[in-house]
Amino acid sequence: MTGPRYTKLVDSLPATVPFVGPEQQERARGAPFAARLGANENVFGPSPKAIAAMQAATGDIWMYGDPTSHDLRAALAVHHGVGMENIVVGEGIDGLLGYLVRLMIGPGDAVVTSDGAYPTFNYHVAGFGGVLHKVPYNDDREDPFALFTKAKDVGAKLVYLANPDNPMGTWHEGPALARALDDLPDGCLLVLDEAYVEFAPEGTAPSIAIDDPRVIRMRTFSKAYGMAGARVGYAMAAAELVQSFDKIRNHFGMNRVAQIGAPVALQDAQWLAKTCADVAAARDRISEIASGNGLLALPSATNFVAVECGLDGAFARRVLAALVEQGVFVRMPFVAPQDRCIRISCGPKADMELLEKTLPKALQIARG
Amino acid sequence: MTGPRYTKLVDSLPATVPFVGPEQQERARGAPFAARLGANENVFGPSPKAIAAMQAATGDIWMYGDPTSHDLRAALAVHHGVGMENIVVGEGIDGLLGYLVRLMIGPGDAVVTSDGAYPTFNYHVAGFGGVLHKVPYNDDREDPFALFTKAKDVGAKLVYLANPDNPMGTWHEGPALARALDDLPDGCLLVLDEAYVEFAPEGTAPSIAIDDPRVIRMRTFSKAYGMAGARVGYAMAAAELVQSFDKIRNHFGMNRVAQIGAPVALQDAQWLAKTCADVAAARDRISEIASGNGLLALPSATNFVAVECGLDGAFARRVLAALVEQGVFVRMPFVAPQDRCIRISCGPKADMELLEKTLPKALQIARG
Repeated sequence: MTGPRYTKLVDSLPATVPFVGPEQQERARGAPFAARLGANENVFGPSPKAIAAMQAATGDIWMYGDPTSHDLRAALAVHHGVGMENIVVGEGIDGLLGYLVRLMIGPGDAVVTSDGAYPTFNYHVAGFGGVLHKVPYNDDREDPFALFTKAKDVGAKLVYLANPDNPMGTWHEGPALARALDDLPDGCLLVLDEAYVEFAPEGTAPSIAIDDPRVIRMRTFSKAYGMAGARVGYAMAAAELVQSFDKIRNHFGMNRVAQIGAPVALQDAQWLAKTCADVAAARDRISEIASGNGLLALPSATNFVAVECGLDGAFARRVLAALVEQGVFVRMPFVAPQDRCIRISCGPKADMELLEKTLPKALQIARG
Repeated sequence: MTGPRYTKLVDSLPATVPFVGPEQQERARGAPFAARLGANENVFGPSPKAIAAMQAATGDIWMYGDPTSHDLRAALAVHHGVGMENIVVGEGIDGLLGYLVRLMIGPGDAVVTSDGAYPTFNYHVAGFGGVLHKVPYNDDREDPFALFTKAKDVGAKLVYLANPDNPMGTWHEGPALARALDDLPDGCLLVLDEAYVEFAPEGTAPSIAIDDPRVIRMRTFSKAYGMAGARVGYAMAAAELVQSFDKIRNHFGMNRVAQIGAPVALQDAQWLAKTCADVAAARDRISEIASGNGLLALPSATNFVAVECGLDGAFARRVLAALVEQGVFVRMPFVAPQDRCIRISCGPKADMELLEKTLPKALQIARG
């Protein structure tokens, strides 16, 4: 008996996962983490009103969710002052990136991103046979000019840029980014990943007309809204592009309870403001802890901080391993020279105290 | 400015949805349905223990779910007596069908299904450029011999068969289906959709070795376990095939709370037994109501009943429209001659009473 016949492309792909989850690390080390600061989750949690709404909706989980996510899209349309036809909801930005790449990219098609930027985007590009071209970070920031120039050189159909950036936390001001669009080649779509934008200073999100065919913006309830486990992302773009997702997406992919919780979270502006203040305070705390240990924290417009460990990637990996060993889950950039840093998510006081307690020992171990 | 450049395949696809959701129908008619009996949801709901577990887990929704669904897969492995490496969890069977088609099917590849079988499978096949070959139902049942013969004739890489079948509710006994596998051509994978199998008589699920490379079985928490809104499906197959999903799936696509609720539902055998008894009683009730109106209910091994309206598809569509008009959400098969039926999901007493009350008038209206 012969086994199933995969496509040639699938045969060429490795079985992989863009990120190993903390649960798997916990099983491997035989103990839970004491602080979960590695996945840029929002440890401060979602609006209590959203939690209550989701708990109340759980009894009705025998019903499928609305495949059009009508009520959530209506709330988002009001919130952003755009039309419902400009919004598509999906299973996190990860899911939407997969759909977007599928819409545009076939074997051999060119795509551009920064070396060291979000690996799940790269995973999807590879998964559809796209050819990924990378440009380096510039001063630990994504470099729009280099990205768009490369896109022109290789005839890219997609170019990815996160603002603020993950894993570095750096950002560009909105007006500068809007001006940079002049350099985007014709027929190349900018995937503007704004997963962290709610944490960023006013004006970080560029002003771009919603029907501008050059840009699709990705947003999420996983970060500032504290609902990573709910899997609710959305994209905003010209109606024609948004509608094209209906050709291929899993129409019944959205959890019903998550669909009900998200608009409640969206409307609790007070909780969002409190979260952003808590995150800002934790960012400062991480910077203090870093400098107290002779390390430099990079400026961040996100809910995490990249901390330079002062030497190379091998050293930072030792620091990271020693923190993990002490029960503090953190991650780090994959690519040099950014891999001289570790990446620490913001957390409440107890988590920051544990970081303060464990970092000196981690450095000591790393210095051997 | 030029818009984005889609793939040639995507350009050729329509924007579509395999099923219009009841919410959209409610918005169109300006009133909610009084009975929701059209989507084969389990109106009797999930185990109260699962609801409680999900409510308790909602406060932790700031965390991503485990991308490996470790605990759920472990529970399923025990339940089915197979290895964890034989199970992949996804965003409903719909999501898993999409991934499976992507693994196997590229432009021009042949796929076989029954004419009138699950449209979401067909949607995914079209979405990856596959060529769908259809064989007719035989006596309102899927016809394994015809399916496998067609698969041989066209060199199909995939053949789809649901047992029990949706939309007809009919089924094959497990041993007969296992014997039919002898006719499956080499290198053709059978997608055995068992979404409704927990409702079916003992022995409906064929005994097939878990490492048999010819078959992948699809199961779900949406039907007997009453968690359609949670989006938890799983597939069981040889380890090599299961692992291949890790090349392309949305690793962080699963809702965390759903992952926690599903094993609790799985372990509440008492609730499942009660649900199946409730469903069986409702099936009998639908048959009684049908025969009380001079109609014939087909035998069913599922949580729905196909009811012959006695004339052609045009007549059945009028009956359906008149039920919908009276607030009873039902659906019907899309293809002749099965479209002489309407498809009614099982529901609790109040829903069945409403059906009893509204069906005579619906028939009267349909008869003009």
